[in-house]
Amino acid sequence: MSVKENFDQLNYPVIVIIGGGFGGLRLARKLSGKKYKVFLFDKNNYHNFQPLMYQVATGGLGSDAIAYPFRKVIGPLPNVAYRMAQVENIHPEKNSIKTNVGEFSYNYLVLATGSATNYFGNAETEEKTISIKSIPEALDIRSLILQEFEKAMLLKSDNDKRKALNFVIVGGGPTGVELAGAMAEIKTTVMPSDYRELDPALMNIHLLNAGERVLETMSEHASAGALKFLKELGVEVLLNTRMVSYNGNEIKLQNGDSMFAETVFWAAGVKGQVIRGTSEDSINKSRYIVNENNLIHGYNNIFAIGDVAEMTSVDFPRGHPMVAPVAMQQADRLAKNFVNISDKKPLLPFNYIDKGSMATVGRHKAVVDLKYYKFKGFFAWYIWMFLHLALLIGFRNRFIVLMNWIWSYFSYERAIRLIIRPYKSNRKGVKIENLKIREF
Amino acid sequence: MSVKENFDQLNYPVIVIIGGGFGGLRLARKLSGKKYKVFLFDKNNYHNFQPLMYQVATGGLGSDAIAYPFRKVIGPLPNVAYRMAQVENIHPEKNSIKTNVGEFSYNYLVLATGSATNYFGNAETEEKTISIKSIPEALDIRSLILQEFEKAMLLKSDNDKRKALNFVIVGGGPTGVELAGAMAEIKTTVMPSDYRELDPALMNIHLLNAGERVLETMSEHASAGALKFLKELGVEVLLNTRMVSYNGNEIKLQNGDSMFAETVFWAAGVKGQVIRGTSEDSINKSRYIVNENNLIHGYNNIFAIGDVAEMTSVDFPRGHPMVAPVAMQQADRLAKNFVNISDKKPLLPFNYIDKGSMATVGRHKAVVDLKYYKFKGFFAWYIWMFLHLALLIGFRNRFIVLMNWIWSYFSYERAIRLIIRPYKSNRKGVKIENLKIREF
Repeated sequence: MSVKENFDQLNYPVIVIIGGGFGGLRLARKLSGKKYKVFLFDKNNYHNFQPLMYQVATGGLGSDAIAYPFRKVIGPLPNVAYRMAQVENIHPEKNSIKTNVGEFSYNYLVLATGSATNYFGNAETEEKTISIKSIPEALDIRSLILQEFEKAMLLKSDNDKRKALNFVIVGGGPTGVELAGAMAEIKTTVMPSDYRELDPALMNIHLLNAGERVLETMSEHASAGALKFLKELGVEVLLNTRMVSYNGNEIKLQNGDSMFAETVFWAAGVKGQVIRGTSEDSINKSRYIVNENNLIHGYNNIFAIGDVAEMTSVDFPRGHPMVAPVAMQQADRLAKNFVNISDKKPLLPFNYIDKGSMATVGRHKAVVDLKYYKFKGFFAWYIWMFLHLALLIGFRNRFIVLMNWIWSYFSYERAIRLIIRPYKSNRKGVKIENLKIREF
Repeated sequence: MSVKENFDQLNYPVIVIIGGGFGGLRLARKLSGKKYKVFLFDKNNYHNFQPLMYQVATGGLGSDAIAYPFRKVIGPLPNVAYRMAQVENIHPEKNSIKTNVGEFSYNYLVLATGSATNYFGNAETEEKTISIKSIPEALDIRSLILQEFEKAMLLKSDNDKRKALNFVIVGGGPTGVELAGAMAEIKTTVMPSDYRELDPALMNIHLLNAGERVLETMSEHASAGALKFLKELGVEVLLNTRMVSYNGNEIKLQNGDSMFAETVFWAAGVKGQVIRGTSEDSINKSRYIVNENNLIHGYNNIFAIGDVAEMTSVDFPRGHPMVAPVAMQQADRLAKNFVNISDKKPLLPFNYIDKGSMATVGRHKAVVDLKYYKFKGFFAWYIWMFLHLALLIGFRNRFIVLMNWIWSYFSYERAIRLIIRPYKSNRKGVKIENLKIREF
């Protein structure tokens, strides 16, 4: 019979983990078989592999390649359960959380809620641009790009076509760079085969970067490499260029210039995704202040890990970087600390081991920073692919991603160019009904 | 350079095909290289393989496995172009169509708009049930089934759980039978592994069939076989049971009985999807009346093929069956007739060659009717799979479907159990907020 037939009767302290990203899901798995009754809450029923999100947005992968159902991981674990719910509030005074489906008590709470897109308080930017943090957003981007292509096919003047095919990406971090590279490859591969009546030169991709180099969290070597690759692919990279507003039609820049833009993708920042309920002095801006054991300031049974945790140290005076390896290593350490708690041993401090970072721009074009070795190009690209395959959860997802990559490699195409749910824009943009349509 | 650089200058008669289903897409391909300038209009940018839609709805396949971008087919054809637009009206008097993006002229028009779900005029049924004609609908069904599972996991009483896990399918044609079978397999495979805290016996699948046998368009041998398979899988099949209304909570039956139903899938009928604009006497109910050349009654340059065409003959006094082979064979014949038109030869009549029909209920469970031979079971199931693979367009889709089937065969799972976009119900159904939630 089921390994969980006695789950409801388990009489262990309850750990509630909120959020099943890299940190939360890993912690849940590491607590399997330990003397705790563990509940993982997430509003989605799947873990998603954020690093490949841009490939879903550009039709290289389907959503099922990078999403993994929680229940497939959690199902077999004897003392861990998953609940699909949106957590709305924390009540530390009564050790409970309030969700959209009711209230649940805990003995220990772990906040692993990750990060959300940061629009820096600009509601207009939030309304008119599209970000790429979730799978529905990635699918929206895929639809929107293809809708703009289809629109261009109907238009009469080259000027109108050029407007429809003008794409602006704001933010030169890994997401912006990878999205820009993938879109440039669409221009060189998909466009000439699928849209033969269109001149690919009418499509333009602009990458706006506020700082003086792209990938600024990586080495100067990586930044220079990525910039070179982007230029080779025909992306117009605008450095030291900060957007101050976008009204759905026109971008205003800090230097006073402006540029036309019908479609703007926002990849310029993330912030921690806090749930309200803890004391005011436990939160700094958008992250929980945690000590070296990931305990939130002022509490002895509420932890935070990953992007939403701000753990400062000599090496990281402004907190650890908001990247997957930090979340995963904090999950590992916290899992051990929970064992220490049940063994009545002291908690151990967290120590981040930075194994390096990487980003990809396109075919045979990637940059890798290791501690003592930095390289780029063909070999870096293979390393990038191999590592991302290894990091995916589950044999099926690895296999599906690998098959899709092999297919794309040899066919030079992004196979999933489907508008399953058309994107309904909030942008002011020019309605096709008002444009001059070419007839036969 | 591009094969289509001179497309705009082609000076041939214009054929406009509306709808890229089995008939329309095939006709467009067959007209490649002929002395016509051909435009295929469709509101979606992909052809979808309707026979496997139920596998998308039940998480066995992703949408990219059964959808194929029109441009990938049409792109290389020198004299054929695709336009994404919704056709709103036909103006036969000026040989033009009105679309959401403008008006287009034709010399010849082919209506291949297929069929839509038939609710027999019952607006309440249309609002409260879900049908399975399009990919977004199939994805909605996938979301809804999984949402009901997640809801059941949160509930306290077995009675509430049983309500959430009660699924009713109305209509015992191929779609209803295949959906019921696939859902029964979810009960026996996914449920025990992913939802170990739930008793699978709480899930019930009812198939309501108005007639006295399921698959009534097939042989009695096939009907009996499908019924046996459904019962083996635990589906409650109710024959001679006609639903008269459904208010979102309760189904009323023609015999006066009623049954509770939180989730109802509607697979009880289809009707032709006509576009208005042709004369009243060219349409019978929901299909265009066509002659043996597929010419619509009263016109000499407007054709209809497939589900939306009603071609009567001695063998088919009420019109040909609304199935893919008819649409495809009519497309083939019409393509030849267009060549005859340009060669100034007479048009040839259509003759349907019925190669048989088949349906699948589950693993090793299918029924096949050939002209002189009817069989079921293990071998029929392999034949069913082989033929469906062969009928899919494109190597990539065949490969993806095959890989998914191999995976499902050995793992006994439906891998794509993802709620990417939660289904927002119109049903009255009981809101989870009002139910008793079990706590830890």
